[in-house]
Amino acid sequence: MIPYRFCFLGFGNVGRALVRLLVAKSTELRQSYGIEWQITGVATRRMGWLSCIDGFDVANLLSGNNLNASTHTSITDWLQTARPDVLFETTSLNAETGQPAIDYLRASIEAGAHTITANKGPVVYAYDELSQLAAAAGTRFLFESTVMDSAPVFSLFRETLPAARLRGFTGVLNSTTNVILEAMEAGRSFEEGVKAAQELGVAETDPSHDVDGWDSTMKLCAITRVILKSRLSPTDVRRESIRKLTPATLQRARTEGRPFKLVSRLRIAEDRSMTASVMPEQIAVNEPLGSIRGTSLAAHFELDMIPALTVISHRPNLQSTAYGLLADCVNSLR
Amino acid sequence: MIPYRFCFLGFGNVGRALVRLLVAKSTELRQSYGIEWQITGVATRRMGWLSCIDGFDVANLLSGNNLNASTHTSITDWLQTARPDVLFETTSLNAETGQPAIDYLRASIEAGAHTITANKGPVVYAYDELSQLAAAAGTRFLFESTVMDSAPVFSLFRETLPAARLRGFTGVLNSTTNVILEAMEAGRSFEEGVKAAQELGVAETDPSHDVDGWDSTMKLCAITRVILKSRLSPTDVRRESIRKLTPATLQRARTEGRPFKLVSRLRIAEDRSMTASVMPEQIAVNEPLGSIRGTSLAAHFELDMIPALTVISHRPNLQSTAYGLLADCVNSLR
Repeated sequence: MIPYRFCFLGFGNVGRALVRLLVAKSTELRQSYGIEWQITGVATRRMGWLSCIDGFDVANLLSGNNLNASTHTSITDWLQTARPDVLFETTSLNAETGQPAIDYLRASIEAGAHTITANKGPVVYAYDELSQLAAAAGTRFLFESTVMDSAPVFSLFRETLPAARLRGFTGVLNSTTNVILEAMEAGRSFEEGVKAAQELGVAETDPSHDVDGWDSTMKLCAITRVILKSRLSPTDVRRESIRKLTPATLQRARTEGRPFKLVSRLRIAEDRSMTASVMPEQIAVNEPLGSIRGTSLAAHFELDMIPALTVISHRPNLQSTAYGLLADCVNSLR
Repeated sequence: MIPYRFCFLGFGNVGRALVRLLVAKSTELRQSYGIEWQITGVATRRMGWLSCIDGFDVANLLSGNNLNASTHTSITDWLQTARPDVLFETTSLNAETGQPAIDYLRASIEAGAHTITANKGPVVYAYDELSQLAAAAGTRFLFESTVMDSAPVFSLFRETLPAARLRGFTGVLNSTTNVILEAMEAGRSFEEGVKAAQELGVAETDPSHDVDGWDSTMKLCAITRVILKSRLSPTDVRRESIRKLTPATLQRARTEGRPFKLVSRLRIAEDRSMTASVMPEQIAVNEPLGSIRGTSLAAHFELDMIPALTVISHRPNLQSTAYGLLADCVNSLR
């Protein structure tokens, strides 16, 4: 069995978790899917463009020592040497333009690699172009982990719900705001809530992207683009921060059994026009989205064929996010 | 485009709903999946084995008039003339042996048809044989609608969760008992609850199969067989009826916020040994399975890759069940 060549563009927590997962699942990947693999390329802003055509030693790669790598000056050179069968892109999000990730993914697809991203930007800003390029190149462009980490959203529609039509969407898609709102319900301050989310590893140093609804907005736009085949610009989404909520308001709402969540909502009218919002909303605890606690996430789809379908991902962790990329990889290669 | 030949073995409410759905979705099936179809065979106990190789008139088929059909004396003759590309089997369940559906499905697969069933019996009693036969014949044997009607369960694992391992399962898989228990929580009698479920079209004339847990047991065995690749006989499941519950007990449980549901539960130990039960259990309303109302269904999967994933199907109807068969059909042909 000739091993597939895997390359990593971006190699932070998610990329490293994916390497550990590939190691842990290697027997199963070989036996159930005929997948053997080696890592021939890694690129980050700090390390530069590195390749090792015989395959990096995985332990050294994870520790960053004795890499025995060739260095390259551009993605083009790097791709030519590392020759990925599958490229995993996990660079950081640019919510305004999706760049430079879009250029990277374009180069990867044009080099013939199945191209898998955890990055919402390219899905929101370049889904059409990149999927058409991939179709023409006979490769896959997949991005399952962008919305609910490991829980299936795009593959759910693509593979399990053929010919079903989305009629509306409601989601609790952001862990950081869940954790902050719950801390404040328990009487703590916004800042203490942010710290709690940071300690859980779900919030960035600057939490604005999450608390001001940008993360949820990008996810809602990605769902709209891919599942509805409709364009929705992040600036078209009515977006309200959770910052205006006070602990007293949140405590009262929780006591009433109708806690606040940062809800991503898409309404689709009969004429197929859309209204999209990301804002704090109260939801009863005995509804699936109101029952969400901690870092859990939920997506609620109204459909023509099933009145509604809810998917809840309970307490996803770093491994779960990495698994979303692994699932895309298996689906590309099988 | 040469139309695919579809045949229906069993033609009750679900089969008829599927025909109406095929008509409603015909443009989308043609445009998105390249599927044109005609119905060349229908068989029921009452009508016998009927074929029309040029395709039945759909309106006449639904009304049962002017069928202009050839009649046959056995499934073998019928298959030889009707030559299905896809066969939909919706005959009634035999919970003890799965017969005669297993023999029918075997004949269909051997005749080269993609073979789709809404019948749990063959999945529980003949999954290995029928899937191996289908693999050898280059056809698909699919059964998505057997557990949660239209909500993906088997395709969820097959297509969207590759290499993920099931660690445990909890489900509310039976609508009839949900409706009866809720009626009794509202102070009505068991018999009134049965009547309410019958009026909703979810309960049989004899509700024993549902209220005594057979339906949920068969579903749990199907999940175990297909997703865990383990054998679990219906007689190995600890099974308790909802009959022993009184309105007073149910009202008290609901008031406490911990209503009773007929819960299907599979515990998997570290050594992979299993304990399975179908019995009334109290679940808090602010947990996803406790939030289930009316005819809604829920499945909660514990996994190695995601701590847990819940899928809720809200108020599925007859069209939803038919859609489960349609989804299998599209997945067979694409």
